[in-house]
Amino acid sequence: MATSTLNVPVSVDEVAILALIDARHEAHHNKDGEAVAAGYATDAAVFSLAPPLMYHGVDAAEKQAWLDSWEGPVEIESRDFKLTVSGDFAFGHGFLRLSGTKKGVEGKVDFWMRSTLAFERQIGGWRIVHDHVSVPFYMDGSLRPAFDLLP
Amino acid sequence: MATSTLNVPVSVDEVAILALIDARHEAHHNKDGEAVAAGYATDAAVFSLAPPLMYHGVDAAEKQAWLDSWEGPVEIESRDFKLTVSGDFAFGHGFLRLSGTKKGVEGKVDFWMRSTLAFERQIGGWRIVHDHVSVPFYMDGSLRPAFDLLP
Repeated sequence: MATSTLNVPVSVDEVAILALIDARHEAHHNKDGEAVAAGYATDAAVFSLAPPLMYHGVDAAEKQAWLDSWEGPVEIESRDFKLTVSGDFAFGHGFLRLSGTKKGVEGKVDFWMRSTLAFERQIGGWRIVHDHVSVPFYMDGSLRPAFDLLP
Repeated sequence: MATSTLNVPVSVDEVAILALIDARHEAHHNKDGEAVAAGYATDAAVFSLAPPLMYHGVDAAEKQAWLDSWEGPVEIESRDFKLTVSGDFAFGHGFLRLSGTKKGVEGKVDFWMRSTLAFERQIGGWRIVHDHVSVPFYMDGSLRPAFDLLP
């Protein structure tokens, strides 16, 4: 069993997993809810930016409705993503920049969040089995999300 | 290579990792910064509740200062923790309830957060190599952290 933690792809599995992540971000750009959902295992444990604490899997219709709440494309840029593959399991973390314009909201949304992803080799290929994204919040009494941080 | 995702420990590795997590929470109760830090790899990637986006490793003195900012013990309760061990690597996620009383702050702190942890088998045993905790925030315009959610 080979375990590697690298910034550049060196194995077939690493290439496949990085392509899965790229496809997810391309699907956001294209506002294609089905394509976003396709990267996730049915019972993936998702810890999202908004409540609830957890939901299971990504519903294509709900994702489509969310994508449609934006004017134009939803852009996701990935940085400093570290991937570890161990057998039929993989795990990675890094930063994602989300940018775009919400319908009916003035100004552009543009901030960095933390992303942790876990993957499992399933029939049909690698799938996301866990997705945890978050923005820290200031503990200065304001409790406001720290949308101004850069990786 | 055996991969298992279970709620109950069935292997020596699962028992060791769950003991590592329990020791971390016991160290919070005992307000022992050294003991908290001991569970982490030196270069662990930590995504905490407060900024910055990431820091590396847990500094025992900084952790001690944080623990000392509480009156009495800092209690951490774990729920619904799912662990996957794959070779020399492991990964888990669940919910943590943090409770206690901050010095100089009226009322008790008591909320649930999401926790994702990754572990690596190192010389001396399993260590935490990634720790991501977060509270979602309400996207109702208030952007307040959702401290009222229950798992």
